[in-house]
Amino acid sequence: MPPVALRADPVSAPAPACRLESPAGARAFSVVPPAPDWVAPGVTRKIAAVLAERPATPCLVVDLDVVEANYHALRAALPEAAVYYAVKANPAPPLVARLVALGSSFDTASLPEIDLCLSLGADPARLSFGNTIKKARDIAAAHDRGVDLFAFDAEEELRKIAAHAPGARVFCRLLIDNAGAEWPLSRKFGCSPAMARDLMRLADRLGLRPVGLSFHVGSQQTDPAQWDPALEAVARLFADLRADGLAPTLVNLGGGLPTRYGRPVPEAAVYGARIRDTVARLFDTAPDLIVEPGRGLVGNAGVLETEVVLVARKDAAETRRWVYLDAGRFNGLAETEGEAIRYPIATDRDGDGAGCGPVVLAGPTCDSVDVLYDRADVHLPLSLAAGDRLRLLSTGAYTTTYASVGFNGFAPLEAHYV
Amino acid sequence: MPPVALRADPVSAPAPACRLESPAGARAFSVVPPAPDWVAPGVTRKIAAVLAERPATPCLVVDLDVVEANYHALRAALPEAAVYYAVKANPAPPLVARLVALGSSFDTASLPEIDLCLSLGADPARLSFGNTIKKARDIAAAHDRGVDLFAFDAEEELRKIAAHAPGARVFCRLLIDNAGAEWPLSRKFGCSPAMARDLMRLADRLGLRPVGLSFHVGSQQTDPAQWDPALEAVARLFADLRADGLAPTLVNLGGGLPTRYGRPVPEAAVYGARIRDTVARLFDTAPDLIVEPGRGLVGNAGVLETEVVLVARKDAAETRRWVYLDAGRFNGLAETEGEAIRYPIATDRDGDGAGCGPVVLAGPTCDSVDVLYDRADVHLPLSLAAGDRLRLLSTGAYTTTYASVGFNGFAPLEAHYV
Repeated sequence: MPPVALRADPVSAPAPACRLESPAGARAFSVVPPAPDWVAPGVTRKIAAVLAERPATPCLVVDLDVVEANYHALRAALPEAAVYYAVKANPAPPLVARLVALGSSFDTASLPEIDLCLSLGADPARLSFGNTIKKARDIAAAHDRGVDLFAFDAEEELRKIAAHAPGARVFCRLLIDNAGAEWPLSRKFGCSPAMARDLMRLADRLGLRPVGLSFHVGSQQTDPAQWDPALEAVARLFADLRADGLAPTLVNLGGGLPTRYGRPVPEAAVYGARIRDTVARLFDTAPDLIVEPGRGLVGNAGVLETEVVLVARKDAAETRRWVYLDAGRFNGLAETEGEAIRYPIATDRDGDGAGCGPVVLAGPTCDSVDVLYDRADVHLPLSLAAGDRLRLLSTGAYTTTYASVGFNGFAPLEAHYV
Repeated sequence: MPPVALRADPVSAPAPACRLESPAGARAFSVVPPAPDWVAPGVTRKIAAVLAERPATPCLVVDLDVVEANYHALRAALPEAAVYYAVKANPAPPLVARLVALGSSFDTASLPEIDLCLSLGADPARLSFGNTIKKARDIAAAHDRGVDLFAFDAEEELRKIAAHAPGARVFCRLLIDNAGAEWPLSRKFGCSPAMARDLMRLADRLGLRPVGLSFHVGSQQTDPAQWDPALEAVARLFADLRADGLAPTLVNLGGGLPTRYGRPVPEAAVYGARIRDTVARLFDTAPDLIVEPGRGLVGNAGVLETEVVLVARKDAAETRRWVYLDAGRFNGLAETEGEAIRYPIATDRDGDGAGCGPVVLAGPTCDSVDVLYDRADVHLPLSLAAGDRLRLLSTGAYTTTYASVGFNGFAPLEAHYV
């Protein structure tokens, strides 16, 4: 693996006054073009202006210029790849509309996501119905709307596609390991290479166009080398499929590109260089590449503003406080499950001279699993009290959509796009 | 602990054709009064009639007569206790309205839950603001609406209540162990007895009325003896508080009463008898009792109907199939997290003679954590295919409200109350 240049631009180097993780690594210039106007770690001028108005909490504020900068950076890092934004990461219409304007393609999980993209002007030819689990009638409806690219990983799914989207382009998802991912995937998606080979041949016999293969290295994948073994499996299978008389051309690299939370992550350029080198080494003819970023495009574009509802101790002798926020696992912070994703934190009291102490951070519901960080050793100002505001940084992805309809009576997460 | 009479009435003995858990234990008559009209394990005639219309899936169908029967059974089992329904378990207006009509009181977690109850005719004097985590302005708003009973477990919370609901009745929540609970609580709620004593005295000095104590033995608590150590702690603290010149009278027994999923659970009558015996043994003067059932009142009243979207194998050699449903962790089945709650399952193919085989059960989203049962060793018919319907029984509690606003574009869980 080549030396990794660590991101150290203000976009991705939120340094909360109190530590969540110690930042480490050499500073370097970012390759992100037209830089958004960062005024504090993780906070742009536009986001700061919204927060200065003291919007009702909890709320998410997303700066679309950051999304645009991320899009350009990824295009520059991997110019051969078509970018299919994973809509599920954040399906807000203003965000999707911005990406439509930039010429992005879209990875969609359901018919409602397809309809959202189309309603915002996306070309159906730029949509992939990337969920391997689709109802027959949704396949038919998508095909009616002009969508022509479908994922599959099972025979039953392939037969549904053949029956309801005759002649469509299809790609088979391979099951691979997820070492190095902070949000690794289960065995839920994909099939073995042997089964993929059989299914690609079946697709051909069913009158579909078996254009290629996909895989996913796991979300928030911090190791650029993790695409290598997957690409090697794909290259081997391409050779087998050609021996079978097929002509696969599409390599769908999936998602997994990380955003910066506590620890530094490699630049998009590092991932791009590594993937390009590997593809050049493994494939005689350059394949058509697709990449499906979600978190990598929108994660660092958002700030989730919360109010401290209560600071408590369980006993007078306990030094670790419990800090309860008005946002929790059921209204925006679902990815704190298992403390998997550790958002950087900033508060109004940072640096007030009173010092910091250890806390458990929890949400507002009566549900005991609504605890955000317990083992994470979060430290927050000793002066923190009910009514103070606290910001979770890099919360642009997978926050609004996981929010419940109203668990415990708490409304879904409000969001502002600027 | 006395011998436990196992529930074996049709309400609570769903026996799926294929095993999820082997039912066990002696059969006995249920004490549940006016029995709803059960036509199959877990399914009443009214629910069956709705399902016969093939409603769009996924959907929940709840028979309010079952809720009513559960309410009467609990009142009969523990006549000394006021029933405060934990609205968070299922805040559907028709369900809350039925309980209002029955004379129930309500345990509420937020101002929106309070407003819901009031809008359906509940008397504010019958509401408890039972969340220990409350914004000052929500305390004030609740007090303005006539709510006069508030939970607390920390000094800061107590001072908020004193400032914004002056003179209100308050009870302090104790931190206790949750042995025996299938959904145990963390240390998120409650404080030590020593701190509770200090805070009750402080409440008195702040002009509040420190009426008593509460605890929670953990949700889906299958061991009736688990209330004993908590009641012993409360009795000791009552003595201390009386020595301090206070006059506590209220013992809030919390929730935890189970519903029947796969395994038999003790009858409400068994819990009632045990708790009554323990209270009589520990308290010279009978305290005012409150019980806060959620799951125990509504769990077995609901059936969640889903459609099989895909049946797949990861490799031709694998015998365990993956069965993907149109309901998953993000649109109704959140309590399958960690496979904590195991719902009984029935399908249209049960008993079709084709036999059963092991499956992994998963939801429809592109999210890899959207897997319902993997370790649970679920067996389903070998004939099961996309388009078939599958029913999850005893899903009346904690399903609709945990549903996301639209993760992956999938709508929240639709529900029908009959």
